[in-house]
Amino acid sequence: MRVQNLIEKKRDGKELTRQEIAFLIHGFTRNQIPDYQMAAWLMAGFLKGMSESETQALVEEMLHSGVVLSHEQIDAPKVDKHSTGGVGDKTSLVVAPVAAACGVAVPMISGRALAHTGGTLDKLEAIPGFRTNLPLDLFHKVLKSCGLVFIGQTEEIAPADRKLYALRDMTATVPFRPYICASIMSKKLAEGIDGLVLDVKTGNGAFMREFADSLVLANMMAEVGHAMGINMVALVTDMNQPLGRWVGNAVETFEAIECLRGKLEGDFPELCLELAAQMILAGGIVKDPETAREQARRAIKSGNALERFRAVIDAQGGDPRVLDNPKLLPQAGRQRTITADHAGFVDRIETTEIGRVIMDWGGGRSRLEDKIDYGIGLYMQAKIGNYLNYGDPLVTAYYNDESKLDEMTARLRAAFHLAESAPKLEPLIKAVISK
Amino acid sequence: MRVQNLIEKKRDGKELTRQEIAFLIHGFTRNQIPDYQMAAWLMAGFLKGMSESETQALVEEMLHSGVVLSHEQIDAPKVDKHSTGGVGDKTSLVVAPVAAACGVAVPMISGRALAHTGGTLDKLEAIPGFRTNLPLDLFHKVLKSCGLVFIGQTEEIAPADRKLYALRDMTATVPFRPYICASIMSKKLAEGIDGLVLDVKTGNGAFMREFADSLVLANMMAEVGHAMGINMVALVTDMNQPLGRWVGNAVETFEAIECLRGKLEGDFPELCLELAAQMILAGGIVKDPETAREQARRAIKSGNALERFRAVIDAQGGDPRVLDNPKLLPQAGRQRTITADHAGFVDRIETTEIGRVIMDWGGGRSRLEDKIDYGIGLYMQAKIGNYLNYGDPLVTAYYNDESKLDEMTARLRAAFHLAESAPKLEPLIKAVISK
Repeated sequence: MRVQNLIEKKRDGKELTRQEIAFLIHGFTRNQIPDYQMAAWLMAGFLKGMSESETQALVEEMLHSGVVLSHEQIDAPKVDKHSTGGVGDKTSLVVAPVAAACGVAVPMISGRALAHTGGTLDKLEAIPGFRTNLPLDLFHKVLKSCGLVFIGQTEEIAPADRKLYALRDMTATVPFRPYICASIMSKKLAEGIDGLVLDVKTGNGAFMREFADSLVLANMMAEVGHAMGINMVALVTDMNQPLGRWVGNAVETFEAIECLRGKLEGDFPELCLELAAQMILAGGIVKDPETAREQARRAIKSGNALERFRAVIDAQGGDPRVLDNPKLLPQAGRQRTITADHAGFVDRIETTEIGRVIMDWGGGRSRLEDKIDYGIGLYMQAKIGNYLNYGDPLVTAYYNDESKLDEMTARLRAAFHLAESAPKLEPLIKAVISK
Repeated sequence: MRVQNLIEKKRDGKELTRQEIAFLIHGFTRNQIPDYQMAAWLMAGFLKGMSESETQALVEEMLHSGVVLSHEQIDAPKVDKHSTGGVGDKTSLVVAPVAAACGVAVPMISGRALAHTGGTLDKLEAIPGFRTNLPLDLFHKVLKSCGLVFIGQTEEIAPADRKLYALRDMTATVPFRPYICASIMSKKLAEGIDGLVLDVKTGNGAFMREFADSLVLANMMAEVGHAMGINMVALVTDMNQPLGRWVGNAVETFEAIECLRGKLEGDFPELCLELAAQMILAGGIVKDPETAREQARRAIKSGNALERFRAVIDAQGGDPRVLDNPKLLPQAGRQRTITADHAGFVDRIETTEIGRVIMDWGGGRSRLEDKIDYGIGLYMQAKIGNYLNYGDPLVTAYYNDESKLDEMTARLRAAFHLAESAPKLEPLIKAVISK
């Protein structure tokens, strides 16, 4: 097989065989196929399209470029949840303990904040002492003892994805559904799971802004997992405003703890309960959605979910006292509330801009090697549909760098659009696809 | 400017500005833009197309990636001829001396044989002692004294093309007209010429098999040169059979000498006279095509063209006695005539296969570093339209490697298709585009 011929085939819009895709992915991972040939192939695929079976092959070959975990000592069904990324999305910190409390084992491999989106690992590491870079033996031990575990991406898992993503990032081939699907699914399937619940975000704070695009991606990923024998659920959920009230790292951890302690009003707990219920269903614990939702709710009310979170914090080196005393979480030194400069209904929130304010104020990263100030945060005083009078609070900022206050105040105020009439409210959960 | 953004722009089918193309070409030539980004951009351009002004910018930026020759001490108009490559195409050895004898200065930079096509440099180097790797000062001196000079591609000329071509070859982005146009024209325009005559081959021995494709390429190159103030003529000529009777290196040099000595029957002299006439016209020596053709013919009949060739051979270290005694050219030790195994009209000749037989028998190259056996050759006893009886000669092979005789005999015989009815004869010169 010659790489040039496979590039040519894709260039001419033909379908590659499983064997041909395996040759490309394995050759590239082992540095036998140079970056420039892979780049040409990636662009040809981007422009000529990838069939379902090519996408399936891509996922599976990327998955098998590295280690696939197995959890033989764990009888419970293994189910994970994955979000495509948004602003204020701290659901993992709630759904993993809730699902674990309901009998599901959750081996969660998560990412870090980048650009305007937050990352589960950073929110967890806001807890003093919490370690996410566990060796694999400890990962298994924590999963067995707590029913859940949180770690970061490891070198051993889907190395093809790491190399391919870096190349895609440099060659304008990132925003293509089959590649996005392959990147996500190759890593998730390497967790050795029986079920997977995907939360595909849509809206102005998501990577995919259009609902139709998000729906197609959700369905594609569900199909790919289903074809490999995984119980798949894919939700498409709203990201036209930050999820919940808090945006940042420590503040989101605080909001997750509040939810686990029983605060169940608002969009964030609503999504947590649905995602946890879908995990319980995907794990086969119960068959009926209403029963699953009831179990999830009871896991919180009973305190069982909070105890699971306490156990995992303890097992991963963190200080579990944060659950009872939020002041032990990092806090910013200053605060400022930004108010409306005219009256009206909150009609639109520039969600990506909210995320960028956090990043630019030190609470996020533009590059993966940047350090994070965990205490930086925003409290969304107003959400879409709220009516505000002149001077009513829009958002409260918790910050350290005073020099940026004027700029950030202006940016935050501009992120809220106020209109004379009430906007049509969109549902939080826009689609649920089960396979 | 970020390379990713320029790749994205092309990926999305948008037109790049001159400045953006300059940034890409110069960054790539200076190794500031990595191969993988250029590969993605090349594939995006291949699939999304390049506009006329993008192609023009590409040619000019590739041209200016290196030295552009100037010939200030030469008053005569500078005109070159370039062929896109075929089998049996030795026209350069005739047209350069003819045009020089008619008052045109011909600074010819040529290539070497590769795959099934021959190369002017190899045909010249079949003359004992002939050197084509002249330093630039000697190049100028020979051009001034002889009115013509033959050299190979130098490091200084269009280095962007050398790097880009190597990358295109590895990434299935070679057969795309704007890139082909840019590759040819950037090198030719670097010769510092006033006029250029292009011979775009079409047919089963050419890189472009379809006439329509060849015509579009011919027109594109003529437009590009015209826009830079060069007198352009582009011919589209038949390559459905080898040009002339001989295929090889020394044998083609012999055939060129025969033509210069006054043998003017057949397709090869016909094309030489037309190309030389177009060079005379492009140089502005005369205005009228018939007069130009008459001048070309007279340059041969008078022996002036032969004397120019003698002068240039002498100036470039070759043995000019080959002009009077062809036995001084390298000769193969053995010969074999292959005959028709049934009667019929020669209806089709697999021209690429004829070229490959030469290559595989040692008379050509599959890689640029391969050594050539200059004496290997074929004499086309039969050409398209000839009627043959059983046992009539098809082709005579001049060879050294007896071990390949059976294979080559079979391949050569199979390259001739004999039919019951006479084929429609195509014109040799299918189009002439003047700008």
